[in-house]
Amino acid sequence: MARKPKHPKDSFVNMTELVLPNDTNTLNNLMGGRLMHWMDIVSAIAAQRHSNRIVVTASVDNVSFTHAIQLGNVVTLRAKVTRAFNSSMEVHIEVEAEDIPSGKKFMSNSAFFTFVAVDQTGRPIDVPEVVPETEEEVQLYEGALRRRQLRLVLAKRMKPKDATELKSIFDPQHYLNDE
Amino acid sequence: MARKPKHPKDSFVNMTELVLPNDTNTLNNLMGGRLMHWMDIVSAIAAQRHSNRIVVTASVDNVSFTHAIQLGNVVTLRAKVTRAFNSSMEVHIEVEAEDIPSGKKFMSNSAFFTFVAVDQTGRPIDVPEVVPETEEEVQLYEGALRRRQLRLVLAKRMKPKDATELKSIFDPQHYLNDE
Amino acid sequence: MARKPKHPKDSFVNMTELVLPNDTNTLNNLMGGRLMHWMDIVSAIAAQRHSNRIVVTASVDNVSFTHAIQLGNVVTLRAKVTRAFNSSMEVHIEVEAEDIPSGKKFMSNSAFFTFVAVDQTGRPIDVPEVVPETEEEVQLYEGALRRRQLRLVLAKRMKPKDATELKSIFDPQHYLNDE
Amino acid sequence: MARKPKHPKDSFVNMTELVLPNDTNTLNNLMGGRLMHWMDIVSAIAAQRHSNRIVVTASVDNVSFTHAIQLGNVVTLRAKVTRAFNSSMEVHIEVEAEDIPSGKKFMSNSAFFTFVAVDQTGRPIDVPEVVPETEEEVQLYEGALRRRQLRLVLAKRMKPKDATELKSIFDPQHYLNDE
Amino acid sequence: MARKPKHPKDSFVNMTELVLPNDTNTLNNLMGGRLMHWMDIVSAIAAQRHSNRIVVTASVDNVSFTHAIQLGNVVTLRAKVTRAFNSSMEVHIEVEAEDIPSGKKFMSNSAFFTFVAVDQTGRPIDVPEVVPETEEEVQLYEGALRRRQLRLVLAKRMKPKDATELKSIFDPQHYLNDE
Amino acid sequence: MARKPKHPKDSFVNMTELVLPNDTNTLNNLMGGRLMHWMDIVSAIAAQRHSNRIVVTASVDNVSFTHAIQLGNVVTLRAKVTRAFNSSMEVHIEVEAEDIPSGKKFMSNSAFFTFVAVDQTGRPIDVPEVVPETEEEVQLYEGALRRRQLRLVLAKRMKPKDATELKSIFDPQHYLNDE
Repeated sequence: MARKPKHPKDSFVNMTELVLPNDTNTLNNLMGGRLMHWMDIVSAIAAQRHSNRIVVTASVDNVSFTHAIQLGNVVTLRAKVTRAFNSSMEVHIEVEAEDIPSGKKFMSNSAFFTFVAVDQTGRPIDVPEVVPETEEEVQLYEGALRRRQLRLVLAKRMKPKDATELKSIFDPQHYLNDE
Repeated sequence: MARKPKHPKDSFVNMTELVLPNDTNTLNNLMGGRLMHWMDIVSAIAAQRHSNRIVVTASVDNVSFTHAIQLGNVVTLRAKVTRAFNSSMEVHIEVEAEDIPSGKKFMSNSAFFTFVAVDQTGRPIDVPEVVPETEEEVQLYEGALRRRQLRLVLAKRMKPKDATELKSIFDPQHYLNDE
Repeated sequence: MARKPKHPKDSFVNMTELVLPNDTNTLNNLMGGRLMHWMDIVSAIAAQRHSNRIVVTASVDNVSFTHAIQLGNVVTLRAKVTRAFNSSMEVHIEVEAEDIPSGKKFMSNSAFFTFVAVDQTGRPIDVPEVVPETEEEVQLYEGALRRRQLRLVLAKRMKPKDATELKSIFDPQHYLNDE
Repeated sequence: MARKPKHPKDSFVNMTELVLPNDTNTLNNLMGGRLMHWMDIVSAIAAQRHSNRIVVTASVDNVSFTHAIQLGNVVTLRAKVTRAFNSSMEVHIEVEAEDIPSGKKFMSNSAFFTFVAVDQTGRPIDVPEVVPETEEEVQLYEGALRRRQLRLVLAKRMKPKDATELKSIFDPQHYLNDE
Repeated sequence: MARKPKHPKDSFVNMTELVLPNDTNTLNNLMGGRLMHWMDIVSAIAAQRHSNRIVVTASVDNVSFTHAIQLGNVVTLRAKVTRAFNSSMEVHIEVEAEDIPSGKKFMSNSAFFTFVAVDQTGRPIDVPEVVPETEEEVQLYEGALRRRQLRLVLAKRMKPKDATELKSIFDPQHYLNDE
Repeated sequence: MARKPKHPKDSFVNMTELVLPNDTNTLNNLMGGRLMHWMDIVSAIAAQRHSNRIVVTASVDNVSFTHAIQLGNVVTLRAKVTRAFNSSMEVHIEVEAEDIPSGKKFMSNSAFFTFVAVDQTGRPIDVPEVVPETEEEVQLYEGALRRRQLRLVLAKRMKPKDATELKSIFDPQHYLNDE
């Protein structure tokens, strides 16, 4: 992996979607699955921009949906790569919803998706390292290790006792998720 | 919540999808976002069957994608409610992929989605309790409490020190996720 | 065709669909064409499972739509192969609709679709025989011959006078369609 | 039904579709279900034009698919009402496929769909009578009675012995379907 | 380009679309972008019929939308090639909307799209000349030169002073667009 | 129209789309109609942001397509309102395409769409004025008058001799379109 490291801003993607009838349930609210579909596309493009490769979704971290997004709302999704581990990249996505006539705008939710860069035969291939610049990017970069251990424990590919970063969070001074 | 409790089998849903060109990336693999869209629909129907209510997606637990699903494959999704907490229901989803001409069939992944039942004005409303029957259902029912604490901690609505179920998992005899 | 015969249950497919706005007419009823689209997919998967081949739709028997299915309803389609004739397979499909909040559930309709198994160049290829097991499967198996003659007569590939199975139905003791 | 009778040409609809990737199977052939979806739309518009009402699909007669239609082909569908019975209308549809670069053009298939006109509450409402003009229209008009009896027998709403029009077809001078 | 010239009627295409929920904005009006999507498909088919080639959209002339088209309306699009210039073809499209229950029918708008015929490698290739027959076709054929100069000036590929056909229109006896 | 004027940056929208199989023709190039559909959505959102109203597409200026965009490419669309005239707004859209694996990125095209703001009954309603800030925004603001005259002349709602801004462009020192 002699390729030149990149900054999170190099992979930044901004995507805007309009909530149409088929995206909604019988209460005229955007369905969670449709939003996740968009989150996957915006973060896949960010991972492609970082790696200049075809990428495949490897995992999605816990996502919570706290505010209903309505039919006719405009949804803005912003994604950037936070950290790379060999062939895998963690992408942070923020979702904002906007009801234009009433002027309401709110953060809907945020999430972390992980992608693996692959070559034309589908085999994993190393990607450039990430060099965070802003304070928020440094925080996301540092938290990535902890989130990665949680993913591996949840996927049963790491034993809880070996998740050194995670163990410390049960000490009251720490929080599991510092985004 | 005086309504009669229900069994997981009462909410069971079996959904079958065929992977079409627009569902795939340039390697002809099913995109993760499309699969999550299907997982949201199948689990929302299970939550509707349990509650006889309109439901909204509240959260999605960590999902990992380990095997590529191909264009033309048949995807089978099976969902059932594992446990209810007031107005919220946890749904377990299993995804199986099948390449019919070659006769290959494999478990693609599994996940937990959480839904809230709402009335016609969108306000949360209590749902029946779940009474597990098989051994697997009992295990899913019991693990639901631990997964719920993890969700609350990740959403910063519970302090790690109060997540009593989670703390114990860092004791080597336990595993975080016993599905 | 030395391949091992199969049972109808080996090809059984269960598909669940949620009626979305774009599937409906201006009375918010599911359009017949959208339902036939789903019936074709579920029965094509059943025919693929029976033959382990790519299949193409050869014909659709008379379908009647007696109950309106509404926006937001859950539609369950169940398909299985009833009988094979060289490279062609007859598939029986049952459609059930469910209005979950009101708890209403009803059989919407049933139909017979016929598929031909083809090789990679699109040429017809023989498929395993069907061995019915339950009483209903035996009835469907036996009726398949009569329905096949009706298809051939309607497609003008058999003369009415040669449709021995059909002729008998105009004798008052018989019915044309004994499903 | 004091409304003025109409001619088949008053309800004539011509629809053109381009076969796109998502309409095809893994052999790049148009899927039968997608074609039936288009047939339902074109014939529903013809029935609307005849009745100036909202219409719902009541039944689809036997359809057979004899030629494969390819990705990129242009499909032309032509529909017109052949005859009305109180609130129901029979529509004849012809499907033609065209491979423009190679200059090939062929009749793919034809079918009869039946629609019922309804008012705003979904209740059946009478429609104008059909007055055929051309020789082909007269033939379609006359055959409609026989096809209607077959539909009723197949739907078990008429006993075979009462289907006077159908019985005669097993006399060698007649054909069941004279389109 | 020794190929035999063709008449506008040889490329004529008639396309009918039903306005579905996902095609509309929150006022239940057909969105302009969806209509342009249909206009592109119908005119691309006309250009393919004229050239018997794959075609790519080269430009769209000014389109204005003066009447709102509603959910449930039937939209009829008619397209034919007006004139060819080497490998490019100008296509005229007329759009008519129809509210069937109320019996209202009106010309929604018209437009000119230009296509280039290409070979299998995507390189431009000459197409047959157009021989107009009706008076309207002659007018469209003659106006095509003036519209072509406007396109070239707007794309900065021709200097305004060289657009001899355009200059004359600012003489009060002429109009820019004589369709 | 006492409402506070706005800057072009207040209505800026950035939209990102991935070219999927169903968006492409048989050469795997993005179809022009699909691109115009996206251009309409991005510019409608910009006009909504400027007016805080529902908007309807009033017209599309000449658009030319010079570079083929491929399957799998990422398309970025950027839109902002350039000038308002009572209830109508002109929006400028720039389209950029990107082939991520090969690192190629190019300006595909640009266009002007015009929208009218309407109230809940669909009647036109005045919008805030636009105050351009950057040099490019001033140029777009000034050119808007000329483009508006061209639109009116092309729609036959203004006589060429009254289009004072347009006449001057046939003087060699000027260009028709200074974007």
